[in-house]
Amino acid sequence: MARPVRIAIGVDLGGTTIKSLAVDETGIIAARASRSTEVHAGQEQVVRNLAATVHDLIGQLGQADVSRGAAMIQPVGVGVPGVLDVDKGLVIASPNFPGWEGFPLRERLEAQIDRPVVIENDANAAAVGEQWRGAAIGLKDFLFITIGTGVGGGVVLDGRLWRGAGGRAGEFGHVKVVAEGGEPCGCGSRGCLERYTSAAALERYVLEAPLGGGTSDLKRLAIDRPDAIDPAVIAQAAATGDEAALAAYRQFAAYMGMGIAGVIHLLDLRHFIFGGGVSEAFDLFAPRLRQEVAARIYGVAIEDIHLLKARCGNQAGSLGMAHLALAAS
Amino acid sequence: MARPVRIAIGVDLGGTTIKSLAVDETGIIAARASRSTEVHAGQEQVVRNLAATVHDLIGQLGQADVSRGAAMIQPVGVGVPGVLDVDKGLVIASPNFPGWEGFPLRERLEAQIDRPVVIENDANAAAVGEQWRGAAIGLKDFLFITIGTGVGGGVVLDGRLWRGAGGRAGEFGHVKVVAEGGEPCGCGSRGCLERYTSAAALERYVLEAPLGGGTSDLKRLAIDRPDAIDPAVIAQAAATGDEAALAAYRQFAAYMGMGIAGVIHLLDLRHFIFGGGVSEAFDLFAPRLRQEVAARIYGVAIEDIHLLKARCGNQAGSLGMAHLALAAS
Repeated sequence: MARPVRIAIGVDLGGTTIKSLAVDETGIIAARASRSTEVHAGQEQVVRNLAATVHDLIGQLGQADVSRGAAMIQPVGVGVPGVLDVDKGLVIASPNFPGWEGFPLRERLEAQIDRPVVIENDANAAAVGEQWRGAAIGLKDFLFITIGTGVGGGVVLDGRLWRGAGGRAGEFGHVKVVAEGGEPCGCGSRGCLERYTSAAALERYVLEAPLGGGTSDLKRLAIDRPDAIDPAVIAQAAATGDEAALAAYRQFAAYMGMGIAGVIHLLDLRHFIFGGGVSEAFDLFAPRLRQEVAARIYGVAIEDIHLLKARCGNQAGSLGMAHLALAAS
Repeated sequence: MARPVRIAIGVDLGGTTIKSLAVDETGIIAARASRSTEVHAGQEQVVRNLAATVHDLIGQLGQADVSRGAAMIQPVGVGVPGVLDVDKGLVIASPNFPGWEGFPLRERLEAQIDRPVVIENDANAAAVGEQWRGAAIGLKDFLFITIGTGVGGGVVLDGRLWRGAGGRAGEFGHVKVVAEGGEPCGCGSRGCLERYTSAAALERYVLEAPLGGGTSDLKRLAIDRPDAIDPAVIAQAAATGDEAALAAYRQFAAYMGMGIAGVIHLLDLRHFIFGGGVSEAFDLFAPRLRQEVAARIYGVAIEDIHLLKARCGNQAGSLGMAHLALAAS
């Protein structure tokens, strides 16, 4: 009889929702579970919610795959937004989880589920997910960039997630793009790339744009109903050639292009994978972004630079955590 | 009888001088040679000058070390400023060597010296030199930064020089620090870190500073004799508390701090080694630089960041190339 297929659990701990997957070692999803995070209810409730999705998955698998001979591995992977101490299993700083500084997330969850837990930054996890089952299959070296409420990243070098000295690598959104007097960032610093390329930045560009000749429907909407401006609305307007929307993407592309050019010069990476909600509009912003990168590189031909849309959607993080759990088992 | 000590030749091809060393495998320098580069005389003359320093070293060693049983290895390492195609042995782009784009330096030198040649970017070579015999001994992960006429870098990850997809990694001076409308750079782009932190940038800060209350001796010198302003003069003035000199270092430190903070967030590096002529004044600028880095990092404590002065001086490049030649033999 063949060795049983191994199944791992990967969890994506988001600010509003916990999304968990049971994934076999070939990357096929065997079960799904999700639940509200309930950050407002406190750390212990969030840990109970995490544990509940894990138990939900184990229950689903007990009825189906495990009976067919699949083997659930012990470690559970949990992707967490923010800066972590991966070795100690602590949250260091996470804007989505105020007051969690120093919280021993790994230990608390292990106590609830009676299994070993591995934690990793969520964007790092998504980079691994894209490498396993998405746009980065077969790539040895790349930067994964997630653009949503914030901007995160994951660096893969020589085929492996690069964690750096303390597991804090990949914080692409906090690379600086303004030397002095930049926009204040949730991280406490100023001038971070995130403040110029996130969903909020795109919205700000539209809201703060001058009215001009008044030919932009998007700008009129921004004046009448500022709350209606979001990345999806901006993308729709850009697709119809709306000038305010295109101007917002131009500003976005200048800063993102600056950040990418810096990574090209520092590491000579050639592949950049774009995930997160704002990257749903990848096809709209990619041509302009490519121009902005081309204007900023030296000794490397733009033809050798590959900007690619992520393929795993909002499953990238949980897929990646399942893969990291398999690697830890 | 013990295995003979191996000796390698490392060459630093500078814009004005070629500096070559014969170095044994323990890092002890066995012989030195130098010669004018004579860039103006054309590529073939520069290659002849490179070959002459190699033959000079071989001649010196023939009389001394080799007779004591040392074994000269075959490969010769040559560090070259600019972007190279290391695999093909070509110069891609080098501001110091105008018109050399595509020049097959490795092949031409091999033909002259009848030995295999390895080429590497000069700052990458200096990073290896500092790791072998200087401030980075024992460090697995660090960024070497050389600050002189230009700003270069070398990234060492997991103990090895990180070259990236095409050997062009480490161009820290061309990481962007201004998104749009920055200072034009010799590389053809704008807003490169080099334009804000090189020797020329320090001089520009002093020359362009407002006269203010007129209490700066350095600023008065800049008005009377602008040609007298150079990094050594600025450093001397800073050491005596001259306001224009301190202001220049503050501007320098803001941009350099921005660049370093970006590398910390992207790669979670903790060690930064400063070489090149401007870094002679490391003790003067380091405290301010440390503050500027501290103001820009998130989730990493400034106490864990180590800014260190390089120790190999202008021998770092040739030492590093000798080490790379040993590795290639």
